[in-house]
Amino acid sequence: MPIAKLRDSSCSVARSLSVLGERWTLLIVREALSGSTRFEEFRENLGVAPDVLSERLNTLVECNVLRREPYQEVGRRTQFAYFLTETGLELHVVIGALQQWGDQHLPRDEGPSVVRRSKSSAGPVRVAFVDTTGREIPEDDVSIIASEGESNAV
Amino acid sequence: MPIAKLRDSSCSVARSLSVLGERWTLLIVREALSGSTRFEEFRENLGVAPDVLSERLNTLVECNVLRREPYQEVGRRTQFAYFLTETGLELHVVIGALQQWGDQHLPRDEGPSVVRRSKSSAGPVRVAFVDTTGREIPEDDVSIIASEGESNAV
Repeated sequence: MPIAKLRDSSCSVARSLSVLGERWTLLIVREALSGSTRFEEFRENLGVAPDVLSERLNTLVECNVLRREPYQEVGRRTQFAYFLTETGLELHVVIGALQQWGDQHLPRDEGPSVVRRSKSSAGPVRVAFVDTTGREIPEDDVSIIASEGESNAV
Repeated sequence: MPIAKLRDSSCSVARSLSVLGERWTLLIVREALSGSTRFEEFRENLGVAPDVLSERLNTLVECNVLRREPYQEVGRRTQFAYFLTETGLELHVVIGALQQWGDQHLPRDEGPSVVRRSKSSAGPVRVAFVDTTGREIPEDDVSIIASEGESNAV
């Protein structure tokens, strides 16, 4: 079956998408990167149905992208807040790459809704390929190579 | 409605995902980056149902990610091959970021199935945030800022 094949896939794009490939999942991560932590914040900002949100948050906790912490407001019952783990924070570059592509190729008249800046220099930030020295290299200098032992993989 | 809201969304992640948010779509782009051009190549390498593949290829052509070109083998009827446009090639960094995250956080015992190398230096390539000079900057130096005029956006 295709889905099972993908979950066990030799390709990490396919494996990543088996966790992240549903639209709401990446939008939840985007919201978390922007500072949302509470169920109601995610629900209101995304306009997502509560049952879908609940399911996606659980998946992201199971996959160690978010961690759940209890909190309590005076006179109310315990609730939960959601925070990005280190694994989740490393999705920032994926979200940044998607945002950059959308701003360039699916622009809206008003311009980008968010921009990224370096905290230290205040200059604009992009997502790009870099070499081992951390220097940007152009896309047409990047080759994709099947790694060794791949002949035994599905 | 959530879907309509997303299509018109002020957020380019949401707009990108309205084109790319379906698992097969990004896997088709991955295949195209690896050199697949023909319907049968995509079908066999992805294990995707022909009707789903056909629909996703059409969407990617409509969105200017792929372009379709006729070709003909001797004694056979005209068929179509699919090539990445400039817009499609710019998804390489999105796919690279997803692959990198999967290799790090959803690894398989055999190691990565593909690696990226610089054609000019033969050294390994990563995806990262860079500043205006093309110099890598760490994720914790990146801030997300709502751009001006956003108060009028949905």
